[in-house]
Amino acid sequence: MSEAEVRGSANRLHEQLERINELLRRHKLVEQVAHAQHGPHQDLVDNLLHRQHLSELQRQLDGLHPADIAYILEALPLEDRLTVWQMVKADRDGEILLEVSDAVRESLIADMDQREILAAVEPLEADELADLVEDLPTEVLPELMASLDAQQREQLQSALSWQEDQVGALMDFEMVTIREDVSLEVVLRYLRRFDELPAQTDKLFVVNHDNMLTGVLPLHWLLVNSPEKMVSEVMAPDVNTFHPADDAYETAQAFERYDLVTAPVVDDSSHLIGRITIDSMVDVIREEGESEALSRGGLREEEDIFASVWKSVRNRWTWLAINLVTAFIASRVIGLFEGSIQKLVALATLMPIVAGIGGNSGNQTITMIVRALALDQITPASAKRLWRKEMGVALANGLVWGGVIGLVAWALYGHLALGLVMTAAMTLNLLLAAFCGVGIPMLMARHGRDPALGSSVLITAMTDSGGFFIFLGLATVFLV
Amino acid sequence: MSEAEVRGSANRLHEQLERINELLRRHKLVEQVAHAQHGPHQDLVDNLLHRQHLSELQRQLDGLHPADIAYILEALPLEDRLTVWQMVKADRDGEILLEVSDAVRESLIADMDQREILAAVEPLEADELADLVEDLPTEVLPELMASLDAQQREQLQSALSWQEDQVGALMDFEMVTIREDVSLEVVLRYLRRFDELPAQTDKLFVVNHDNMLTGVLPLHWLLVNSPEKMVSEVMAPDVNTFHPADDAYETAQAFERYDLVTAPVVDDSSHLIGRITIDSMVDVIREEGESEALSRGGLREEEDIFASVWKSVRNRWTWLAINLVTAFIASRVIGLFEGSIQKLVALATLMPIVAGIGGNSGNQTITMIVRALALDQITPASAKRLWRKEMGVALANGLVWGGVIGLVAWALYGHLALGLVMTAAMTLNLLLAAFCGVGIPMLMARHGRDPALGSSVLITAMTDSGGFFIFLGLATVFLV
Repeated sequence: MSEAEVRGSANRLHEQLERINELLRRHKLVEQVAHAQHGPHQDLVDNLLHRQHLSELQRQLDGLHPADIAYILEALPLEDRLTVWQMVKADRDGEILLEVSDAVRESLIADMDQREILAAVEPLEADELADLVEDLPTEVLPELMASLDAQQREQLQSALSWQEDQVGALMDFEMVTIREDVSLEVVLRYLRRFDELPAQTDKLFVVNHDNMLTGVLPLHWLLVNSPEKMVSEVMAPDVNTFHPADDAYETAQAFERYDLVTAPVVDDSSHLIGRITIDSMVDVIREEGESEALSRGGLREEEDIFASVWKSVRNRWTWLAINLVTAFIASRVIGLFEGSIQKLVALATLMPIVAGIGGNSGNQTITMIVRALALDQITPASAKRLWRKEMGVALANGLVWGGVIGLVAWALYGHLALGLVMTAAMTLNLLLAAFCGVGIPMLMARHGRDPALGSSVLITAMTDSGGFFIFLGLATVFLV
Repeated sequence: MSEAEVRGSANRLHEQLERINELLRRHKLVEQVAHAQHGPHQDLVDNLLHRQHLSELQRQLDGLHPADIAYILEALPLEDRLTVWQMVKADRDGEILLEVSDAVRESLIADMDQREILAAVEPLEADELADLVEDLPTEVLPELMASLDAQQREQLQSALSWQEDQVGALMDFEMVTIREDVSLEVVLRYLRRFDELPAQTDKLFVVNHDNMLTGVLPLHWLLVNSPEKMVSEVMAPDVNTFHPADDAYETAQAFERYDLVTAPVVDDSSHLIGRITIDSMVDVIREEGESEALSRGGLREEEDIFASVWKSVRNRWTWLAINLVTAFIASRVIGLFEGSIQKLVALATLMPIVAGIGGNSGNQTITMIVRALALDQITPASAKRLWRKEMGVALANGLVWGGVIGLVAWALYGHLALGLVMTAAMTLNLLLAAFCGVGIPMLMARHGRDPALGSSVLITAMTDSGGFFIFLGLATVFLV
């Protein structure tokens, strides 16, 4: 993408969306009027108006960056989305498909025939193709593979052979490589033969005759050093390289830590096989934050906000079902104590407080531990210390807040023992919340699971059932 | 930071931490033994061992990138953290302070005297200083300001005059500017006079005699074009510029959308005043994801995982207190129906299910809406449609899951009407959850509030109190 293509700006983009919405609205109005009235004259006028709106829309779209069109497609309901999609110039389809979210991509591809799909993906690089392939209908794949040359096919297969969260799936193959036994002058002349350098290029990769990476030459150093110097004098031999099997999120953290823009990817014997760029790492960082928010919120994956009711129901039902089971278990715990509740109905009124505060406190602990695990900050030595600290916080909170609510319960029901049971139950449930809040994510991490996934549902399940059991149990022993 | 400094790698970093932990452990062991035994010989041996461990530790630390030392400081308990901090070479203190989180920075600065602090911040640029200033003790500020030259002081004041979430607070002032009426050859010669270019430089800024930005010259174009060409022929006139008052997160989205590495910041009359780099935008994107997770989890801010119990209690008490109030309100709602519960104790057992599923479903809706608002995807036209869709999803889920749980209630208690009330209450509470899940964040956004903040607590408060009221109310009317 060249600088000149960048027309939009975050601030102007929403206005752009409003304008397109307005054009679409007028366009539909004209169509409705045309359906209602059937004079021959009227048709002509409508047709003119119609064409005027569409050509204005076309003009707007042509001026937009592919990423901006992607944004607009995301923000439009299905029907309008497809109207706009059909107006986008065919040679930009591929780039736009790369930018939209999975859910929206699905809706766009469903609207294209085989010929259109092939035309759209034809201008893409192998690594970009790899991102799209799994969303394409299987019928087009044979023809698509046949249209690639041997090198592209190999690159595509290489990219597809890695997991989505591995560096191998995110690297691209556009690199400028140079030899170390030439002068910077020669490098400068070599670069002038290019029409343009691969996007984001901030360094050249120095390789030997065997394509083994021996160093990197940042463009900065090429520019500030005298052209007579040799590459070998100027290049950095000690470079941050990655392997295709490396974890994408850890690599993104390295990019963030060392302020990298690009980095080479090498195989086990140091052969240069690709490069990683900051823009794909930014996506990884954003997606990590989002997928945590989504899974906490109980959504299976990113959702097209205009998805059909049926699709939304499917995206959400897993967590609802899990929650139903945990809620049912909590309810059965209460069921054990129905006799006590019948004798002292205040128990039913007060029990959600014990469970609720436990859940809130447990979520605070688990959020912190999940974050520390994601940053790889917890060692066996510190784990015990964390447990002690969290139990300390829980004890303090339990005595203070449990004390407050105990006093309130005493005042409300004029029953001192009830207040004391309330305070004790709150404190015990907060301790349980702290114990599970540290323990659950550590256990998940030790078994190779993502500690964020479902952490909130799990901890809430523990503090609900646990809270009801502790409170009603104590009440049954001491009050009833 | 030069390429050669980059020694660590995400994958090796955790091992590094383990090694340092081991050295610290041995170091402490020797100290303990020294305290226990008091032979003159013993002292000598200990002293040697002691020094050996410390010099090994020193060697390890000297080989690390400032960001890696920051990571290690974050992952160490306070006492060990300060041992390591005292061993870090003083001239790297400033860089490391920039990399650690606010909470850890506080603990490090508390350990430094005035002279050390001034020495640490002395090598920093004005924009970096601006990030630290608010964490420094006020006593050092007069001396610090006196040590700056006029330009730095002006830059620092400019950076401090903007909000933390505005571009003005994040921009830096290190830029290479050129004129458009020179040849690329001249630019190349000009660049060779630099020792190094500002970090991340991927384009030069073209300004006129009035310092007004007239275009940008990407380094790529400087390299691939013939040196005889003029800057004005090659530069991109239409450039993505930002204003200091722009929202940082929107700017970060633009960086992500257009794959930018740096971008110029101009004032209202197009004068170039600074630049924004991708590394600060990556921080913004990561922090946005994190602060959402933290505020959902009920933490006021990022917490030092080894903070004292007292500090942790303070960081968490706000949300606990809010939650206590909402839980108390829900409890009073139940209190209204104590008579009904006394007559039909199954109500107490079943009511948490209605509230719990409502909360889960409401959180799903609100997560999606908050995300769409953050991406600016919602227009007045689409708001109504979203409401309709979410109500549809709620109705479907209510009838299905409410039906299931109604059947279970019927089976458990042999009470058909109770099952029907359960189904009806579930459906109504899910509709309430959908209504509030769309409405609350939109209302917050319209009033200029961050829709993510406290969204989870608010929606849960609605579905708890609402769920209890609907279920117990229906039961009182139809069953008791």
